[in-house]
Amino acid sequence: MGKKQVMVPVNEVDLTEVKYVPEKFEAPHLTGFWFKLFVKVMEAPLIGSLITSHLKQKNGMTEILKNTVIPEVPMFIPQFPLQDPEPGVVCLEEDGKPEERVDLALKCLPHYDPSSSWNSGSGEPFRFRYWKIRDYGYAYRSKFTTPSMVAEQFISAIEVLNDKQPSAPLLISFDPKEVRRQAAASTQRFEEGIPLSILDGILIAVKDDIDCFPHPSKGGSTWFHEVRQVNIDAVSVSRLRSSGAILVGKTNMHEFGMGTTGNNPNYGTPGNPHNPKRYTGGSSSGSAAIVASGLCSAALGTDGGGSIRIPASLCGVVGLKTTFGRTDLTGSLWEAGTVTIAGPITATVEDAILVYAAILGSSPADRIPLNPSLPCLPDLSSNESSNILGSLTLGKYTKWFNDVSSTDITDKCEDVLNQLFHLHGCKTTEIVIPELRELRTAHTVTFGSESLCLLNPDCEDGKGVRLTNDTRTNLALFRSFAASDYVSVQRLRRRIMYYHMEIFKKVDVIVTPTTGMTAPEIPESALEVGETNLQVVASLMQFAITANILGLPAISVPIGYDKQGLPIGLQLIGRPWCEATILRLASVIEEFSAEYRKKPMEFYDILKVK
Amino acid sequence: MGKKQVMVPVNEVDLTEVKYVPEKFEAPHLTGFWFKLFVKVMEAPLIGSLITSHLKQKNGMTEILKNTVIPEVPMFIPQFPLQDPEPGVVCLEEDGKPEERVDLALKCLPHYDPSSSWNSGSGEPFRFRYWKIRDYGYAYRSKFTTPSMVAEQFISAIEVLNDKQPSAPLLISFDPKEVRRQAAASTQRFEEGIPLSILDGILIAVKDDIDCFPHPSKGGSTWFHEVRQVNIDAVSVSRLRSSGAILVGKTNMHEFGMGTTGNNPNYGTPGNPHNPKRYTGGSSSGSAAIVASGLCSAALGTDGGGSIRIPASLCGVVGLKTTFGRTDLTGSLWEAGTVTIAGPITATVEDAILVYAAILGSSPADRIPLNPSLPCLPDLSSNESSNILGSLTLGKYTKWFNDVSSTDITDKCEDVLNQLFHLHGCKTTEIVIPELRELRTAHTVTFGSESLCLLNPDCEDGKGVRLTNDTRTNLALFRSFAASDYVSVQRLRRRIMYYHMEIFKKVDVIVTPTTGMTAPEIPESALEVGETNLQVVASLMQFAITANILGLPAISVPIGYDKQGLPIGLQLIGRPWCEATILRLASVIEEFSAEYRKKPMEFYDILKVK
Repeated sequence: MGKKQVMVPVNEVDLTEVKYVPEKFEAPHLTGFWFKLFVKVMEAPLIGSLITSHLKQKNGMTEILKNTVIPEVPMFIPQFPLQDPEPGVVCLEEDGKPEERVDLALKCLPHYDPSSSWNSGSGEPFRFRYWKIRDYGYAYRSKFTTPSMVAEQFISAIEVLNDKQPSAPLLISFDPKEVRRQAAASTQRFEEGIPLSILDGILIAVKDDIDCFPHPSKGGSTWFHEVRQVNIDAVSVSRLRSSGAILVGKTNMHEFGMGTTGNNPNYGTPGNPHNPKRYTGGSSSGSAAIVASGLCSAALGTDGGGSIRIPASLCGVVGLKTTFGRTDLTGSLWEAGTVTIAGPITATVEDAILVYAAILGSSPADRIPLNPSLPCLPDLSSNESSNILGSLTLGKYTKWFNDVSSTDITDKCEDVLNQLFHLHGCKTTEIVIPELRELRTAHTVTFGSESLCLLNPDCEDGKGVRLTNDTRTNLALFRSFAASDYVSVQRLRRRIMYYHMEIFKKVDVIVTPTTGMTAPEIPESALEVGETNLQVVASLMQFAITANILGLPAISVPIGYDKQGLPIGLQLIGRPWCEATILRLASVIEEFSAEYRKKPMEFYDILKVK
Repeated sequence: MGKKQVMVPVNEVDLTEVKYVPEKFEAPHLTGFWFKLFVKVMEAPLIGSLITSHLKQKNGMTEILKNTVIPEVPMFIPQFPLQDPEPGVVCLEEDGKPEERVDLALKCLPHYDPSSSWNSGSGEPFRFRYWKIRDYGYAYRSKFTTPSMVAEQFISAIEVLNDKQPSAPLLISFDPKEVRRQAAASTQRFEEGIPLSILDGILIAVKDDIDCFPHPSKGGSTWFHEVRQVNIDAVSVSRLRSSGAILVGKTNMHEFGMGTTGNNPNYGTPGNPHNPKRYTGGSSSGSAAIVASGLCSAALGTDGGGSIRIPASLCGVVGLKTTFGRTDLTGSLWEAGTVTIAGPITATVEDAILVYAAILGSSPADRIPLNPSLPCLPDLSSNESSNILGSLTLGKYTKWFNDVSSTDITDKCEDVLNQLFHLHGCKTTEIVIPELRELRTAHTVTFGSESLCLLNPDCEDGKGVRLTNDTRTNLALFRSFAASDYVSVQRLRRRIMYYHMEIFKKVDVIVTPTTGMTAPEIPESALEVGETNLQVVASLMQFAITANILGLPAISVPIGYDKQGLPIGLQLIGRPWCEATILRLASVIEEFSAEYRKKPMEFYDILKVK
């Protein structure tokens, strides 16, 4: 343990204050017999590590390595192969205004017919239906409702939810005044006929590991706001704000993203909107649940090991993991990693496209080394789209695809592949992906080490005991990884990339179930103390981590339910930078899987927007 | 300990043999009281690491992380800021033929006047003088001598040296037949009037960590050839070979580059050509000594923490560390690192330029992300050169510059700066470099982890006890670094890069002594058992590691001697990719520091080329 130090950001260091400190090393000078003896002692199991610890401590290394918060991102970046441009796409300017990108995205969507949305309930018994962003836009522009009216209904719904016992809030930072203020401004813009974009007046929630001023960023913990101030929005959040979105608060999450169930003893574990006794999945638990329950059109999540796609799949909504480097993580807890990205969770694919268009744009420093190509969207408004669909090939590794907890999952996924072929001519072809065990190890070591780097100084400073048991268990494992392990798994990572690039020479998209199981039960005993269950975690993550370790874009689309009524998600993994292709496919899959929209959910009675 | 496994290179894996292995995890499922207890045990000092070890072992992670040789390089690359082009340069094609690059380099050199080289001894008592590559070229073309005659003299000199007791060979792999074969071919080419380039018939030695077929690559150890075959030349070596160079064998080195004295109990510790009781410096000990003793025109070294520049400085020759990514490390022991490069050690700057021109050219995969700009050479043949020199500014951090073991070093270095100003108008300006302690830590952790990654599988397989005591001590320290430490120091690395890029806005080159001390004494007791002396190592490395951790080009130029007659080197550190500027400066510094060429050395009597 040692006292935490926080470095000043490098561009704010006052060079006139720098003092030169001559080197002073404390280490023995040895040759001959004593040197031989010393080597034996250094290599002995316990005493050896005591000596190295002592030497590192004496020479100031421990302080720098374990007790110092370093505000900069690492000087290395993962390397992704460049790809040919995708057909039938519209390219967006990363440096352009977000609202202009959203306008361009809107033009890529199929024609919007209000009658299909607004008359569907007539005649038959009313069923729950998600309002799409364009539905809100139509309603606002037609003055059926206003952002302020929607915000009031949202606020009352959240307040009802928050009063429930046991407490399991979707938003762990929520300020009705802040929501009303934004909604009033949006309403005013609509009255003046100058909405900022189709996202104006749209309710969007933000995961608790992405900065959204004036809310704190706790990463789902009880204390992280004490050690890290939030003064401005994260880049992705500021892009949503300048598109007119109403940012409703910070969503519950698995503490520091270190689990995929969504269990959170600090604030309560949110129940799945499809069955409150089941987990939402995580770590973006609140983000998925708030969208699945129809309270928000979209939520931002982060995904370092499936944390967007897993809860999206378990809650029956859409989750988009962008290519690593496609979004700017400045202002999130994950600035310094190589596997985590920010992305949208939405009820529909077209909403994912709109939110994605707003938030995209890499940090300019990363642009040249990571990606010289522009971000693109599929042009779904053009007639060409069906030709392009017919030219796509999906890759399926059947033994892996079938290695799930229930045939319900495999059957539904197979149905989708069959329909894709019969309706659109997309062929599925068999692929083989070697070294999946190595892939898992590479992911665990990479994600674990990068996460630990974030938490080390505070844990050493004594805050470790204020973490959940689940986080503490994970950190104990992550602490056991050696620096050379990190380097080794980066070598594995290049191997795994090679295999996948070979596969992508033959197929356009790799298709898998999103998760190996549907929403798992929440054990009663896990509410207060948490839970460690590697089998469940592994089954939830088994298909997700490929896209993280390789930086690939991937999307989870809801395709129906298992026999227990729990949602099943299908995952499409694309080539690096090729978001357009997976969005195009997801959009047609959604068309013929519309079943999920009509299922009534627990929260429906609370949300009386209509 | 565990049995070593070697992965097949990824492009040779037979996918038809791949078997799907379902995930199977061995870990407890815990909630409630037992989970709380488990967390406490996991966090306990000894039992905790036993449990994580056991879990990692059971789930196959240890095998992958510690016992497997992974042939691929990591999927991340360090990120270097791009720079404006340098003035007055000639650019070279990375993909062109090496011999054509050498021809172009030859055109960049000042006019060659044979009379200055060939008549200088007349009238005055004869003194030792290095033959430059162009001197050999002139002699071969004028038929004063032939490559075969030079090779014979070289072979007898080496044989005399090898017979000395205690044994301290400069070449630890040497085959006279192989040398004669190459020399005969070169002689033949000269007879036919078709030499391949100015490097044709030039004797060049190769450090033992770079592949040079048919020699083994042992990295200075006794056993590494047992675990790693050499079937072809390293890329840099093959480029020399196709330029006509005679590759004379593999030079002695500090085992696996893990030290900077050159101590090597496996083969004997080479003595410094200026004083055999002193170290040569290392780790490229044999490379520097073989050039300093006039036996070879050039030698290849590798530099991960000063390993080219330190021995060049201590032996009074020129050592060039290229920008990271400028040379292709394929076929060396350092393919997977982020700090080590290959570069030339030569007697003169113009020879460094010629050899550098031959070996440069990054691996095509690295080119786009690392460096979109072409490698350049200073055009020293043009009259413009003096104008360019006058426009250059040198940066000096005086407190650091003066933090050396003797004022002899500082005084000589100051002299050079004064002469640069008075003769060429180069101004020196004061700079401040913060966080030098952090820089050292970043270097130790990065270099250590990347080296350990190379040696882990064999150490775990039982070969660790066959390493020298020095290597074992270093590995014990390197093993203690956690994976999150590696990530942390990459963040430090970006800070340090920022400071240096700010400095490079004001100065063109940073100037330091190459080492904090001249050649240290070899203790008698260190010959057989080796030596650990962190103070000496740190003093040798203190100015060198900046260029490694930031990937910057740097050169050591000999500028004279201390009162004990030991050489002093001056180091010039350039902007990323700006080799041309430091080569231009080094070339004029050499002109007014020609003193070092005239000092007789012990080996002179052996080498009777003239």
